Amino acid sequence: MIKVGVVGGTGYTGVELLRLLARHPDVQLHAITSRGDAGMAVSEMFPSLRGRVDLRFVAPADAELDRCDVVFFATPNGIAMQQARELVDKGVRVIDLAADFRIRDVAEWQKWYGMTHAAPELVAEAVYGLPERNREQIRSARVLANPGCYPTAVQLGFLPLIEAGVADLSHLIADAKSGVSGAGRKAEVHTLFAESADSFKAYGVPGHRHLPEIRQGLVGMAGKAVGLTFVPHLTPMIRGIHATLYVRLTQDVDVQDLFESRYRAEPFVDVMPAGSHPETRSVRASNMCRIAVHRPQGGDVVVVLSVIDNLVKGAAGQAVQNMNIMFGLDEALGLDIVPVSP
Amino acid sequence: MIKVGVVGGTGYTGVELLRLLARHPDVQLHAITSRGDAGMAVSEMFPSLRGRVDLRFVAPADAELDRCDVVFFATPNGIAMQQARELVDKGVRVIDLAADFRIRDVAEWQKWYGMTHAAPELVAEAVYGLPERNREQIRSARVLANPGCYPTAVQLGFLPLIEAGVADLSHLIADAKSGVSGAGRKAEVHTLFAESADSFKAYGVPGHRHLPEIRQGLVGMAGKAVGLTFVPHLTPMIRGIHATLYVRLTQDVDVQDLFESRYRAEPFVDVMPAGSHPETRSVRASNMCRIAVHRPQGGDVVVVLSVIDNLVKGAAGQAVQNMNIMFGLDEALGLDIVPVSP
Amino acid sequence: MIKVGVVGGTGYTGVELLRLLARHPDVQLHAITSRGDAGMAVSEMFPSLRGRVDLRFVAPADAELDRCDVVFFATPNGIAMQQARELVDKGVRVIDLAADFRIRDVAEWQKWYGMTHAAPELVAEAVYGLPERNREQIRSARVLANPGCYPTAVQLGFLPLIEAGVADLSHLIADAKSGVSGAGRKAEVHTLFAESADSFKAYGVPGHRHLPEIRQGLVGMAGKAVGLTFVPHLTPMIRGIHATLYVRLTQDVDVQDLFESRYRAEPFVDVMPAGSHPETRSVRASNMCRIAVHRPQGGDVVVVLSVIDNLVKGAAGQAVQNMNIMFGLDEALGLDIVPVSP
Amino acid sequence: MIKVGVVGGTGYTGVELLRLLARHPDVQLHAITSRGDAGMAVSEMFPSLRGRVDLRFVAPADAELDRCDVVFFATPNGIAMQQARELVDKGVRVIDLAADFRIRDVAEWQKWYGMTHAAPELVAEAVYGLPERNREQIRSARVLANPGCYPTAVQLGFLPLIEAGVADLSHLIADAKSGVSGAGRKAEVHTLFAESADSFKAYGVPGHRHLPEIRQGLVGMAGKAVGLTFVPHLTPMIRGIHATLYVRLTQDVDVQDLFESRYRAEPFVDVMPAGSHPETRSVRASNMCRIAVHRPQGGDVVVVLSVIDNLVKGAAGQAVQNMNIMFGLDEALGLDIVPVSP
Repeated sequence: MIKVGVVGGTGYTGVELLRLLARHPDVQLHAITSRGDAGMAVSEMFPSLRGRVDLRFVAPADAELDRCDVVFFATPNGIAMQQARELVDKGVRVIDLAADFRIRDVAEWQKWYGMTHAAPELVAEAVYGLPERNREQIRSARVLANPGCYPTAVQLGFLPLIEAGVADLSHLIADAKSGVSGAGRKAEVHTLFAESADSFKAYGVPGHRHLPEIRQGLVGMAGKAVGLTFVPHLTPMIRGIHATLYVRLTQDVDVQDLFESRYRAEPFVDVMPAGSHPETRSVRASNMCRIAVHRPQGGDVVVVLSVIDNLVKGAAGQAVQNMNIMFGLDEALGLDIVPVSP
Repeated sequence: MIKVGVVGGTGYTGVELLRLLARHPDVQLHAITSRGDAGMAVSEMFPSLRGRVDLRFVAPADAELDRCDVVFFATPNGIAMQQARELVDKGVRVIDLAADFRIRDVAEWQKWYGMTHAAPELVAEAVYGLPERNREQIRSARVLANPGCYPTAVQLGFLPLIEAGVADLSHLIADAKSGVSGAGRKAEVHTLFAESADSFKAYGVPGHRHLPEIRQGLVGMAGKAVGLTFVPHLTPMIRGIHATLYVRLTQDVDVQDLFESRYRAEPFVDVMPAGSHPETRSVRASNMCRIAVHRPQGGDVVVVLSVIDNLVKGAAGQAVQNMNIMFGLDEALGLDIVPVSP
Repeated sequence: MIKVGVVGGTGYTGVELLRLLARHPDVQLHAITSRGDAGMAVSEMFPSLRGRVDLRFVAPADAELDRCDVVFFATPNGIAMQQARELVDKGVRVIDLAADFRIRDVAEWQKWYGMTHAAPELVAEAVYGLPERNREQIRSARVLANPGCYPTAVQLGFLPLIEAGVADLSHLIADAKSGVSGAGRKAEVHTLFAESADSFKAYGVPGHRHLPEIRQGLVGMAGKAVGLTFVPHLTPMIRGIHATLYVRLTQDVDVQDLFESRYRAEPFVDVMPAGSHPETRSVRASNMCRIAVHRPQGGDVVVVLSVIDNLVKGAAGQAVQNMNIMFGLDEALGLDIVPVSP
Repeated sequence: MIKVGVVGGTGYTGVELLRLLARHPDVQLHAITSRGDAGMAVSEMFPSLRGRVDLRFVAPADAELDRCDVVFFATPNGIAMQQARELVDKGVRVIDLAADFRIRDVAEWQKWYGMTHAAPELVAEAVYGLPERNREQIRSARVLANPGCYPTAVQLGFLPLIEAGVADLSHLIADAKSGVSGAGRKAEVHTLFAESADSFKAYGVPGHRHLPEIRQGLVGMAGKAVGLTFVPHLTPMIRGIHATLYVRLTQDVDVQDLFESRYRAEPFVDVMPAGSHPETRSVRASNMCRIAVHRPQGGDVVVVLSVIDNLVKGAAGQAVQNMNIMFGLDEALGLDIVPVSP
């Protein structure tokens, strides 16, 4: 059994981690921390976990996290970077669901996240946990940077085209739409039901923190600079991301075959039949990413449709997938969830 | 392995059955029938099942259902009653998720359902599959009438009070609210998104088919006549039923203790702490029924709040629970789903 | 032209008031105050008002409210009671959309609202602004207590039965469902989209602040004590209240005729044909209350269905209706909005 | 008074037309036709119109449409083209909200709409009713082709850039998101609440009927061929379209100034301040189009965000705007609706 600690269990990625870990056959939940709600039963805050998670939140200081095999940080940005060093030094592996270790260029990170990085040396060794790209490095990672939700959907959609060298890299467009849970469980006016239901909007068009993360990933695939326009939108649903990607081909290629070949062995990427339009609900509550590829009217523009559940493949599920890889388990262990639809 | 057939797999109770059966460790899916879509891959109609259910719909005539151990009817009312006789005679057990075998008074059934019953003799032997009331009879049932969604939530909420003889039976009120999936997957104007989103309404106030079913159940608990007012409402959510019940006490009693005692051993009924207000999402995608009991201002009116997922405990999940009981399995096998929240 | 001030224009009742006042032909908007957002253009906070309201929020101290003919308080509870005295003494009429002047029993008010009342003498003279009950007193009111949202829907539904003396007053039940905007524009976790979408729950069952308000109104109609159970619920829609009322008749009566007679002359109460089920969307954005009356199976239980838009007839629209009455205008002036459906 | 007929009043554009016409000061509603529901009171089908529209649906043959000044066709494609000739010959002006007269190339129209055109000679004389482009021609139009919903939002967003000659025309991208009412009031499975709520998907990527309409409009602005990729999406809200447009600049230009200058005099196009992100709810129920323009990171890619209410500026409202122009009225008459938000 893997002894697991969760730091910051009161947000959506936290409760989703608990949903998944509660039924993972090889996991023993050791502690779930919360600064503000220590002492409260986890299932009092999240009644969906009644009878499934019997722990109480503990204060970070009382959590004895160094007795864990792995600690997940489901915290705001800037927390994991302060605590990871000590854990790693004691042999505890760290999986950060926030952004602290995602950007290799520390100066760039500091610009976008508006704080000084507390552990730049760990950034250097951290592994970016997109298994479809970095599975081998993940196995031995001590610090795992779990990808952002948009970056997961967008990178998996661009990946086959860029790796194959058939994309016009100067003008990549990612138009992405997210459910509201992506904004987290903080009390804010703009994510109130009466503000975000029955309405649709873009946000962060001048620049969103996931832009440098996606760009870094695409540059890594391409081996050279890319021109990327990324526009996120808020859509009135709880879970789900739908990324619509626009790529100009530099050469003629069978894009359906390209995607199917690239992802044939991937347990959590499903290339749908030609002509498909994946719905976000087709992956709801599961770790799947479903992708369809189109060339409208047979032209040179490829439209890629990529959907994930932002809380699963875009956060907690991918974190568990990474944990499975890190501990040599079947990569899909505990993740055999059939999507909930309708 | 239990060999299972599903008749009518293209509606919401059908696809939900498939979601549950696909991961049931002791079930082998033998055939899924559809009159209109025979030949189509199940996962083409329901992409959420891609990689999980590899069967194609077959025409009823080709399904060889008599080779099954059990056949679920996820069909409109009036189908199971035509086919059950033959299956039962061949030793195949039948679980009907529609209403054909729910009402013991055949004349009453015919009045509410507007057709002549094709197998009244099977009504007599059919067992009403509310495990919390009829677990023993369910074990040996050959024909199992799976309860309706409203009747499940409402009966479980009234049950402890009526069994204990502390309810004023002359004036029971059940004000129930259902998500739109309860109306099924038929194309109808009133359940279009643009008709039912962002709005709320009652329906069927003059008389709803679940009224006689609930009344029969309550009379069974009480051993005498009851006066019941039942008002269903449509609420703009996909899944979930919330029943709010109003009962006048005929004697002073600790209602919290009464409910906890009655349901202590039940795997799928969760009596919440005093003062709770269960949300439908706390049971989403799971087979749980959560109940809270109140006596506002300490008066003689008891308010019971009872929530289920209409497609699970209100349909497919309860059907699997009944199957487990009928075949001597652990009652919760294949139903260990952690509710999906948010 | 009536010179109008609005205190507290940044909540939902505030912005809804502005929507209505912006197109009221006899109104001149003089000032809109906001403690926290003084200086900001109203249309920057509420882009829906771009080109329609050109004012900026001003600090309360700078608003020169004593130059207004009428001041609306769209503030939290406890604000109007502190400022009304001074305005009234200067001849400015006050319409409070909060609860400060709704409950005539000051001790009762203090118990439910948890504060000491700052102007009990104004409570005594304040008029409760339900025009269908108190139209005459409203004409000359100096302080107008605009009814709560639930109390409006519930009282209008019970009114004809109680006034006619045909209701069993010992056991009145009001099961009410509200859209999320009823909770206001405060940043709180439980009204986030991801918390309240696709889910349904009751709240405040042990006691909700609208209970004493409703009870006071019903007692006023009945001339004697009433036994009332009131259960509010949160439903995943933006606007709308649906009240389902259960009343036992003490004598046989044609309830359809009773309701039609009582409301024939009311401009904002629409008694629907027998057998109807009003939807909340049928009054969306308008000041209408639509009501249907049923006697299921011809029994002695009457079920009343009453729907309003909580922000209009349940708040800002009724406030404008009251203003019209107070200033001798056509009661419907500025309120001729056709409901928005779908 | 303008005597108005509406052919096909039972769909969403029909009922929305009625909402607008019912309060238009210069309109007299003469007849509303329905083949299937003749004899039914309009307000029985649409209770939101109770007390506002007192007509009954009449059979087309009984409508005496030739006595009208103008007839709106709110019908499926292929109806107006069969009836327009006769009306026009009798001096009745025709406004078609469907697609019959939108595409000037009849062969192209027949390819996309799958039928033979019944009145190609009327296509030649029909005026495309986008007032911001064609106001002068609209004044004297006998047959008015009211633009599609997507084409309105998309064309208004591209227009200033293309007219100014600063757009790379070879690779224009329009990623558009629509509320579900855009699919109409037909009973279909894919627009059921339980199918389209809490989910998001693209559709029609290989080719959507609005593609040739948009392309024709852009070609008209550019005076030459354009390369356009158009991807529509279904988003779980009732009303609203959000178009996100991607254009590469061919020369440096102040895009904010360009848009503001172009639309300064337009009553129904609102260019928002630089940095804005318009929400669809900011135009809900109104005839406004709100637009924001961005150049992320100051690059050469312009992102245009354009929102409308698909049923108003995208259908019925624009039709009334066109009627006002055709009859020499104030263009905004009857359209002074303040958007409903929240």
